[in-house]
Amino acid sequence: MPEAPTREAAGRLDADDPLAELRDRFVIGADPVAYLDGNSLGRPPRATIERLHEVLEGEWAGRLIQGWTDSWTELPTVVGDRLGATVLGSAAGQTVLADSTSVNLFKALHAAASLRPDRTELVIDDANFPTDRFLVEAVAAQRGLTVRWLTPEPVGGVTAETLATMVGGSTAAVVLCQVDYRSGALADLAGLTRLIHDSGALAVWDLCHSAGVVPIQLDADEVDFAVGCTYKYLNAGPGAPAFLYVASRHLPYVRQPIEGWFGAEDVFAMAKVYEPATGIRRMLSGTPNVLGLVAVDEGVRLIDEAGLERIRAKSVALTDLVTDLVDAWLSPHGAALASPRSAAVRGSHVTVRHPDARRITDRLIDDGVVPDFRNPDLIRLGLSPLTTSFVEAWDGLRALRGIIAP
Amino acid sequence: MPEAPTREAAGRLDADDPLAELRDRFVIGADPVAYLDGNSLGRPPRATIERLHEVLEGEWAGRLIQGWTDSWTELPTVVGDRLGATVLGSAAGQTVLADSTSVNLFKALHAAASLRPDRTELVIDDANFPTDRFLVEAVAAQRGLTVRWLTPEPVGGVTAETLATMVGGSTAAVVLCQVDYRSGALADLAGLTRLIHDSGALAVWDLCHSAGVVPIQLDADEVDFAVGCTYKYLNAGPGAPAFLYVASRHLPYVRQPIEGWFGAEDVFAMAKVYEPATGIRRMLSGTPNVLGLVAVDEGVRLIDEAGLERIRAKSVALTDLVTDLVDAWLSPHGAALASPRSAAVRGSHVTVRHPDARRITDRLIDDGVVPDFRNPDLIRLGLSPLTTSFVEAWDGLRALRGIIAP
Repeated sequence: MPEAPTREAAGRLDADDPLAELRDRFVIGADPVAYLDGNSLGRPPRATIERLHEVLEGEWAGRLIQGWTDSWTELPTVVGDRLGATVLGSAAGQTVLADSTSVNLFKALHAAASLRPDRTELVIDDANFPTDRFLVEAVAAQRGLTVRWLTPEPVGGVTAETLATMVGGSTAAVVLCQVDYRSGALADLAGLTRLIHDSGALAVWDLCHSAGVVPIQLDADEVDFAVGCTYKYLNAGPGAPAFLYVASRHLPYVRQPIEGWFGAEDVFAMAKVYEPATGIRRMLSGTPNVLGLVAVDEGVRLIDEAGLERIRAKSVALTDLVTDLVDAWLSPHGAALASPRSAAVRGSHVTVRHPDARRITDRLIDDGVVPDFRNPDLIRLGLSPLTTSFVEAWDGLRALRGIIAP
Repeated sequence: MPEAPTREAAGRLDADDPLAELRDRFVIGADPVAYLDGNSLGRPPRATIERLHEVLEGEWAGRLIQGWTDSWTELPTVVGDRLGATVLGSAAGQTVLADSTSVNLFKALHAAASLRPDRTELVIDDANFPTDRFLVEAVAAQRGLTVRWLTPEPVGGVTAETLATMVGGSTAAVVLCQVDYRSGALADLAGLTRLIHDSGALAVWDLCHSAGVVPIQLDADEVDFAVGCTYKYLNAGPGAPAFLYVASRHLPYVRQPIEGWFGAEDVFAMAKVYEPATGIRRMLSGTPNVLGLVAVDEGVRLIDEAGLERIRAKSVALTDLVTDLVDAWLSPHGAALASPRSAAVRGSHVTVRHPDARRITDRLIDDGVVPDFRNPDLIRLGLSPLTTSFVEAWDGLRALRGIIAP
């Protein structure tokens, strides 16, 4: 059995952590003892609460309808550009914040398929997040396309070898997650995108589990479309708007199906005919969610302050610590590491497989440790570098040991 | 020239107003002097700000991911049912809060058309709100349908006589606004719905400018689909989620195109295949916007407390006052009433036509009076019964007189 890192060792990692002071910028109470689910819902930044108060009292109450001309109308693109620069590795004019990941993926899939009108297939892995799979099936049915299902490695995720057998001259687009929501496997975004392009298909990346915690270079890697949520590592709160990236080379040719007034060239012209906006704004549909948008803005500002390289370094250290504890404490007692062992191919959560996962999760929550459970036998331990301390992670794992190996 | 009501008369109306005390339940500053744009963006209720604070600190920070199991997951239907009972005249299980009006209309149009697969036309009036017209054209193109454009009366709106010439055996669905966003004309929702049904078509009503200010009986009037926003008379804030009503008789047969995880029967089962939820929840797609949902909830609670009959009575008195002032002060000086003269066929805004409307609106705003301008020559004066006082409306009109007839 490998030796487990001690609580003192975890404390030394906290003492040396350049991001440790950022933890105080979040509202963190005494309970839970360990929150290991920031990969599902990040904690609230204090700045977000202050900013929302200012928007409610100063902008909504104070400026009323003039808020739209002051700043609100531009928030989807202003915050999109900031997210692009800080998190997505994308130049301005290619990203909007709007709607939900589901709605944005729906738009991206239709847009991608319409750019490849002579192709007949959409490819997705069968372990992909449900909403992605459901929407690929729905859009395929709507457009008369066929879905090809790729089966990824249980822990390693989608590899180039497997993908190469699935894409070809019939492939219109491929939908993949950069970080697998179950195993935490980190896909080779650059390499898989090249492979997709080699067949003339378009790459649609779901960045829900990577945005804000893994360095991303959408422009350099020539990604075509990307979507993702903002309530995980971007800490924008439950149901905050999602993002949608469309590479600038596609924008002039892209139409999306939900052609509402905010996607029109002149929103307030009340024009007779829909004229899509020239740039990324054409991907918008309805009235933007202002409270959610400012929450995303504040979340992104914190990421910017921390720096993605430092965030990634802490994420690697946190997941290494947890992996070591799983190996030392849990694997000898019927649990199995269900995430990649190498940090190079791992996102920011570590998953443990146990036949009793449902009951163990409930007991952990009773003990003040919050992971999350994924059907049928997975316990996900999310490590969110801006808010998870090493001792917090250690304490969470100790509680888990107390249940699995009492 | 008719005699203008005096400011004292307006003051007496305020003194006798049973809803006057509710004005203190909103955050209302000294500026603007008169806010006549509650029909575009309602003012913030104090309870909403308190509730948002509680959600941020108590639920998001305090309960973290457990907020979803505590209450958030059910908010779209819980608030939908409350909105249905209070505002829409609809029994439980037929209304959800989600997305934007644009996205909801997109869903409703596809759903309606799929219920009438052998019919080839969508009907909409050419004065309808842009997003409605744009989406009818988009959905028609997506489904290979034809759009028939109905031209309403400039002030009176859509009449039964005009509509009767447009609907027939080819009509799948008709999209109408209960209150016209420009003239304020109040359509005969019950009568037009019957007429639509007589041809076997489905009625899709946009209630953006009527929800919360005009009594609505969707169930009794046998409406098929309805959508609307919540940031006008429901005071839920900029970009709060919109509503979508589907009559229960249609729900078992309805599918909508954006089949995301929140529309699935078991959201967290992470199922292999999309199984639509049994009831109205199948109209959902992505993760609900929690902050927006609680803001809608608080807005609806205030409407419930006031009572729609009392709201409508005050709305009629306010629009009567403004109409009288327009007649007395503005019509002799080049302005024209562009709204119905009879309150029975008028919503809660009064529109004035003037060739110089753009410049007049800007000057009014400089004078601390906020109406809104609609291309090319319309000044809309919105009267929001929970927050607009009679003296406020009178002062606003006096300022308008000072510009038009100095």
